Amino acid sequence: MAPGMGVGTRAVAEAAKRASRVLATFDEATRNRALEAMAAAIEPAGARLLEANAEDVRAAGESLSPATLARLKLTEVKLAEMAEQVRSVAALPDPLGRVLDAIEMDEGLHLTRVSVPLGVVGVIFEARPDAVTQIAALAVKSGNAAILKAGREVEGTAGMLVEVLRSALREEGLPEDAVCLLQGRERVQELLGMHELVDLMIPRGSKALVEYVQANTRIPVLGHAEGVCHIYVDKRVDEALALRVIADAKTDYPAACNAVETVLVHRAIAAEFLPRLAEHLRARSVVLHGDETVRELLRGVEVEAVTDWRTEYGELAISLKVAASLEDAIEHIHRYGSVHTESILSSDEEAAERFLREVDASSVMHNASTRFADGFRYGFGAEVGISTSKLHARGPVGLEGLTTYKYLLRGTGQVAGDYRASKETGRAERTFTHRRERG
Amino acid sequence: MAPGMGVGTRAVAEAAKRASRVLATFDEATRNRALEAMAAAIEPAGARLLEANAEDVRAAGESLSPATLARLKLTEVKLAEMAEQVRSVAALPDPLGRVLDAIEMDEGLHLTRVSVPLGVVGVIFEARPDAVTQIAALAVKSGNAAILKAGREVEGTAGMLVEVLRSALREEGLPEDAVCLLQGRERVQELLGMHELVDLMIPRGSKALVEYVQANTRIPVLGHAEGVCHIYVDKRVDEALALRVIADAKTDYPAACNAVETVLVHRAIAAEFLPRLAEHLRARSVVLHGDETVRELLRGVEVEAVTDWRTEYGELAISLKVAASLEDAIEHIHRYGSVHTESILSSDEEAAERFLREVDASSVMHNASTRFADGFRYGFGAEVGISTSKLHARGPVGLEGLTTYKYLLRGTGQVAGDYRASKETGRAERTFTHRRERG
Repeated sequence: MAPGMGVGTRAVAEAAKRASRVLATFDEATRNRALEAMAAAIEPAGARLLEANAEDVRAAGESLSPATLARLKLTEVKLAEMAEQVRSVAALPDPLGRVLDAIEMDEGLHLTRVSVPLGVVGVIFEARPDAVTQIAALAVKSGNAAILKAGREVEGTAGMLVEVLRSALREEGLPEDAVCLLQGRERVQELLGMHELVDLMIPRGSKALVEYVQANTRIPVLGHAEGVCHIYVDKRVDEALALRVIADAKTDYPAACNAVETVLVHRAIAAEFLPRLAEHLRARSVVLHGDETVRELLRGVEVEAVTDWRTEYGELAISLKVAASLEDAIEHIHRYGSVHTESILSSDEEAAERFLREVDASSVMHNASTRFADGFRYGFGAEVGISTSKLHARGPVGLEGLTTYKYLLRGTGQVAGDYRASKETGRAERTFTHRRERG
Repeated sequence: MAPGMGVGTRAVAEAAKRASRVLATFDEATRNRALEAMAAAIEPAGARLLEANAEDVRAAGESLSPATLARLKLTEVKLAEMAEQVRSVAALPDPLGRVLDAIEMDEGLHLTRVSVPLGVVGVIFEARPDAVTQIAALAVKSGNAAILKAGREVEGTAGMLVEVLRSALREEGLPEDAVCLLQGRERVQELLGMHELVDLMIPRGSKALVEYVQANTRIPVLGHAEGVCHIYVDKRVDEALALRVIADAKTDYPAACNAVETVLVHRAIAAEFLPRLAEHLRARSVVLHGDETVRELLRGVEVEAVTDWRTEYGELAISLKVAASLEDAIEHIHRYGSVHTESILSSDEEAAERFLREVDASSVMHNASTRFADGFRYGFGAEVGISTSKLHARGPVGLEGLTTYKYLLRGTGQVAGDYRASKETGRAERTFTHRRERG
């Protein structure tokens, strides 16, 4: 498909839609057979894949940071890991056909709610070749077709990988359009206009990318633009626990969206606790930011002014603030947070339960590091993304986020009129039983 | 609040957001107390309400259809029914605080997923005063604040009703901004721009209204613009059952979104069945439309040409078509349907199960009238709306559609670093157990 042609993007999306109809009819064994074929095709194509990747790496040249270049570069070990990852998705429980609810509406009239695929999922990602196999595997496992749009730096590698996966599907007699690739930047905008063909967009990448997608489409978007996470240290707290949890939440992986950005300390312990926290963090190379009160309490320590409580540092830097009370802390979190992940450190069960109940965020924690907010750590087996939207899927999203449900009603000729009160007698011929059979 | 001021709409939305934070902390008893106060306030305010309503009716004058006027006009009986409806919402099971999932991540590290309110729900409706009390009741029951925008014809009545409900809340010491009203048409566009304050929009009304809302906001929209529902009559079918179900699906309430618009008849029985169906429907004043084949088979019967298979008649008219096969029927449904409700009439269990599995729609039925697709008939107790979106809530939506969930993680000081393999030993200090405790 030649890039840049409007008709091309629509043709790709229509092919994906058709493939999704076929995929939706496959049982679990057939979908797992497709995944096995995809996994088995990766390593034999190693030479071609490494060559295409070397080309991408050459083309990128000096323009990429060492970290991005490391993510972009394929090796034989990485290829083996990618195949392994596809097999591990095959091993997950089937997300489709689950009976979510069952109600007997009347004798011989049974309603069930069952999980079904969404249809077509559009995924935009940056310089990671392994995103191709991971997304393709998650999509096929959940009966969806995937339309992938790779970052410019990885387009050659992604193109070759998608070709390998499509051949594998084709050779098994399965619909190759279950995995489609769009090439060329202008394709993104075209795809975002196709809300009648695409059921969900998943932008994986920078805040700017996520915000661009959210602002430019009527297709539902699964993602998060920001992770401004807080830890509130209550007045009754195990200080050693607090130091350990805060250090982990900031330093375990500072670029992650679930890393902590602001620590709120209760006024009653601030004078004692803040200097210890400052020392603990500075020993781990964390740059401190604080408001006037904090800088006063930490006189003699290097503390920069906070320019914006909404800052997501994404590096070894942190904002510190004194909170007058639990309510004050919750108020701050609701004002400046991104409804991602918030944690209270406290020995007071009542305060903790109040925080868990009142804080509006996708994950709310007590005495645990914000870094736990992650699909793998939560035990979902796979992570489609983390959502800070309140609708559909919230927080870390596993395969369930790629499904919806439909209602199936099995009758024996019932009509609505029989359940309506007659104008003459005031009585209906039949009444609903609405007996819950499950759920 | 004076209508027409931009600052007014934002102030209303911010007040609703604040009220929603308070509502979210209420237990079931407190929310039910609020509903009881609202219900109890309606009848004592009867005189004022009827007066405001009489004003609306006078102002509307000749401009409204008799049916719309009948919906607009309040009576003492209707006021009593409205109070009763609020009480019946109070009697529904609590949609909040349900534990949807529970996973032990490790000893002393417990993850639960619990249902919580969405926050602020914006509802736009047309000329029904009872929509005010119904929406307010559903919102308060599910811990949400509601921002209502009534149709112009009902603005006086709606204003008085909202004032009555707000006083009732205020007198109970509950947040009156749980129920807010916007007046003036220009307010809708302002509200649609406030995606940071409003969590869900529910347009109730014409297709044009729903499409306008969908096209002009980043706020998620619950609703459906169209209901183009099909019934497929398979080659093996109980003809008496088919006649009865089709007549009900078309004539029980032709203006409803779940009324049938197109009947597809298998080729093998078309010559025999279509004339009987035509007679059965014409005896019930249904105007027939058909393609060339149908008109040929029904020579001598008045059959208009089908202009568009996507037509939602909303009245006593129906499109008829001959289908070459089950696949052909499904293909037609996927091409022209609105993923609302589709039904197969068949004595062949295998064909029925295939239809249930393969048809992509929010409700798929076997041997039952499409008119059953309704929250009350499905046994949800209340209906927030019917959604043809695939995300969040699909099909008839009960109180559950006004909730989302959050993850609560209760720990004892765990940090993510302990679960990471050390570079020296290759082993992690701790491993996740991921034992499902429920769900």
